Amino acid sequence: MTSNQVANGSDALLFLDKKRTYFIRVRSGESFHTHKGFIRFDDIIGRAYGSRVRSSLGEEFAVLKPSLRDFIQKISRRTQIIYPKDMALIMLYADIRPGSRIVEAGTGSGALTVLLADRVRPDGRVFTYEVREEFLDIARRNVERMRLSSFVEFKNKSIMEGVEEEDVDAVVLDLATPWEVVPFASKALRGSGYFASFSPTIEQTIKTCVAMEKEGFVAVETVECLVRRFQVKEGMTRPETLMTGHTGYLTFGRKILTD
Amino acid sequence: MTSNQVANGSDALLFLDKKRTYFIRVRSGESFHTHKGFIRFDDIIGRAYGSRVRSSLGEEFAVLKPSLRDFIQKISRRTQIIYPKDMALIMLYADIRPGSRIVEAGTGSGALTVLLADRVRPDGRVFTYEVREEFLDIARRNVERMRLSSFVEFKNKSIMEGVEEEDVDAVVLDLATPWEVVPFASKALRGSGYFASFSPTIEQTIKTCVAMEKEGFVAVETVECLVRRFQVKEGMTRPETLMTGHTGYLTFGRKILTD
Amino acid sequence: MTSNQVANGSDALLFLDKKRTYFIRVRSGESFHTHKGFIRFDDIIGRAYGSRVRSSLGEEFAVLKPSLRDFIQKISRRTQIIYPKDMALIMLYADIRPGSRIVEAGTGSGALTVLLADRVRPDGRVFTYEVREEFLDIARRNVERMRLSSFVEFKNKSIMEGVEEEDVDAVVLDLATPWEVVPFASKALRGSGYFASFSPTIEQTIKTCVAMEKEGFVAVETVECLVRRFQVKEGMTRPETLMTGHTGYLTFGRKILTD
Amino acid sequence: MTSNQVANGSDALLFLDKKRTYFIRVRSGESFHTHKGFIRFDDIIGRAYGSRVRSSLGEEFAVLKPSLRDFIQKISRRTQIIYPKDMALIMLYADIRPGSRIVEAGTGSGALTVLLADRVRPDGRVFTYEVREEFLDIARRNVERMRLSSFVEFKNKSIMEGVEEEDVDAVVLDLATPWEVVPFASKALRGSGYFASFSPTIEQTIKTCVAMEKEGFVAVETVECLVRRFQVKEGMTRPETLMTGHTGYLTFGRKILTD
Repeated sequence: MTSNQVANGSDALLFLDKKRTYFIRVRSGESFHTHKGFIRFDDIIGRAYGSRVRSSLGEEFAVLKPSLRDFIQKISRRTQIIYPKDMALIMLYADIRPGSRIVEAGTGSGALTVLLADRVRPDGRVFTYEVREEFLDIARRNVERMRLSSFVEFKNKSIMEGVEEEDVDAVVLDLATPWEVVPFASKALRGSGYFASFSPTIEQTIKTCVAMEKEGFVAVETVECLVRRFQVKEGMTRPETLMTGHTGYLTFGRKILTD
Repeated sequence: MTSNQVANGSDALLFLDKKRTYFIRVRSGESFHTHKGFIRFDDIIGRAYGSRVRSSLGEEFAVLKPSLRDFIQKISRRTQIIYPKDMALIMLYADIRPGSRIVEAGTGSGALTVLLADRVRPDGRVFTYEVREEFLDIARRNVERMRLSSFVEFKNKSIMEGVEEEDVDAVVLDLATPWEVVPFASKALRGSGYFASFSPTIEQTIKTCVAMEKEGFVAVETVECLVRRFQVKEGMTRPETLMTGHTGYLTFGRKILTD
Repeated sequence: MTSNQVANGSDALLFLDKKRTYFIRVRSGESFHTHKGFIRFDDIIGRAYGSRVRSSLGEEFAVLKPSLRDFIQKISRRTQIIYPKDMALIMLYADIRPGSRIVEAGTGSGALTVLLADRVRPDGRVFTYEVREEFLDIARRNVERMRLSSFVEFKNKSIMEGVEEEDVDAVVLDLATPWEVVPFASKALRGSGYFASFSPTIEQTIKTCVAMEKEGFVAVETVECLVRRFQVKEGMTRPETLMTGHTGYLTFGRKILTD
Repeated sequence: MTSNQVANGSDALLFLDKKRTYFIRVRSGESFHTHKGFIRFDDIIGRAYGSRVRSSLGEEFAVLKPSLRDFIQKISRRTQIIYPKDMALIMLYADIRPGSRIVEAGTGSGALTVLLADRVRPDGRVFTYEVREEFLDIARRNVERMRLSSFVEFKNKSIMEGVEEEDVDAVVLDLATPWEVVPFASKALRGSGYFASFSPTIEQTIKTCVAMEKEGFVAVETVECLVRRFQVKEGMTRPETLMTGHTGYLTFGRKILTD
């Protein structure tokens, strides 16, 4: 069975329309129930992703192969602060690449961990710090579901007590007080390595930049990323009425060695 | 010599401040001249990235290891339409991952090719179409400089004449008339695979969406991505006065199989 | 009784917090009921605007004098397409000033009419076209409530059949097909007079600009206006999560005389 | 001669295209020189605004009647911080209307003063504080040029020493330290009156909001206003590449009476 076929136990995205999209685990003998009727998983198993399937009420769904973004959106639905758009920018601005060794904190439900792990494959590694054990368990399960466990080391520790790794390529933070971690991040980074931090408020961002300046980081930059969705239909094209006006500020910098 | 040391023949980024940053190739016996004096490359070779170096006039530069983003900005300076922020979003929204097989057109100077190639490592592949031979040569050199040639197949052909690959994971377009390629893209994609297109104008975007609807793509979405830079200094924090107000619209969709 | 005192029959804004603000008509003997208890109007009458009043349940409300913006938001709640921010820009970009003679279409519920009428006082005039009689009645009542009736002439006609006024200073449109009115607007305008049009979609905007070019308008410009609200609290300052991402495009131009 | 005719001594806007627009004072016997040849003012005097005129080199210009916005842009070119878009919002959000009595500080070159004075006509008044005498002179000339002097009282005083007026409808600030003026503003305002302040930095904004809360202002809101310009041409429609990403934050509030 090729990788583009729906297997028993695999994930799928049932797509009715943009607002009615369901991330499911396909299990033989079971079915998925919606307001538009139910779908028997045995009708899907063995078919190619991208196929259409009809519910018991005749409604047509597309069976999609979930993307990392789909998964990230699913697992961060409740705790979502840092959005896919912000993560996408972090990947490029902090130069997360195959082979990179990354320190992350806090892990949360593992949404960013999953993306980092996928990017550093096959010979890089993510060291992720999370002080709340219950979150670490959730994150571990999420990373495992994406089959990325061998690229992640979960650490049930507070990064406020220091970073144990050395010569890492990037430190990526989604914490309430990132400025307190700046000295540890600086110590852990290789020369020219990347500091990246996400903060919802401007006060957090200011404190973080002040701390970075003190540690001698260069190329310090703070940005915000706005993504605006459009309705594109001939004769009715326009941006959507409501948009996400703010998620957080992203701050980046590069480590300089002291002689 | 470890990978974080500046070697003869390697690339480096000489950083004075945000506006004076120079992407250079380090060559023994040569030097780099700026308004702030010159820097002898032999003073850099063998040192760690992240070190500081003084120019002949005593000005201090940081010697940084270039990121993919640095390289992309360097090579797209003259022809730049699609920006790093847009590329970053494409990577995530089109689920470009290790192992992905990607069709790209047009290659241009290879800025996006470099990023795609890095992302699909080590077992994926980028098939990039470019009808203008002189651009293909530039792109080939750029990809080689980043040591990514083994992940890219350069095709001196117009994608308007069809896509030769099958069952690809994504088709990524930066073309003047992307809507003409939609049927070829649809044919080349595996079920649930991604179509992604960048267009500066709204008319291109509308035509592309109309063509996508005709081919039965689902999850079609158009977004624009705005990145706003901040000046963060205690007591003087504010967004920068000038910003890039527009680069282009990004349109995405997923391939549905017809029975 | 000075104009800053609440009179029987006058309007007031009861303010509890940003999300719980009530636009009311004060009538002796009556009261206003909220989830936080009721407020007797006789407790307010005769007091200065800006006073505080307690509800029967002890909740404190501020009694504010409504602004034009408050009134506009109240009356356009159901049909709201053009927002105060857009109206504010129209006032300045179309040079609406005391003494201006303005043609408006369509009237709708009169939200923009009220603002135009207030701006052209005391010796200007607004001629407003509305084909739907039921809207014209609503608009008439709203303009009267703001005591601006003597500055407005209501016309139960379609502006598609032509503009009866001549040498007007501005034509302001909020219509589904503004491009059809461009020739009539051009004819009605004095030399150097202003055309202003609000449209939700880009296709309407393009057609309008094409029609304007044909009629020889100069200084044609299209803008969109985004207003982003902030939460400003020490240590928690950030833009609000949700924002209005789009209301419409505003297009302006100036009439040139043909010899 | 009607008001839409160019008179000797009046102002005009010579329009070649969007980027080449000249604000001039028409004087009999003189002429205006551009790279596209010169224009004799005697060829313009007596003609209607909106006419076309040819330069000595045959280039066609439109002769427009300047708007308040044109004048504001002209006089604030050198010191411009607060833009027309921000002023437009202040007019509506601070309910500046015919009859309003307004306190303004600082006057600067009088750009905002001109707009305020025009809005409060015919029976309102603007009291404008400016400690720098040389600016006050410039402002006085600018207000006079717009024939609005009888609606403005110029005060060569620092507003930091207090506001002399009472029961004013609004206090509008464009100062480096607006938070120091909040108590004076509060004292000068009538109940339900408006405080409005423009500040480039977020720290100024935070301090101002803190001071407003202390003084008991309600309906406190901070916004930023972004205006994005479009290139609208059939087949080439798109936002302009560069935009003004930031001018400043606007903060508003309403005065509550203490018993």
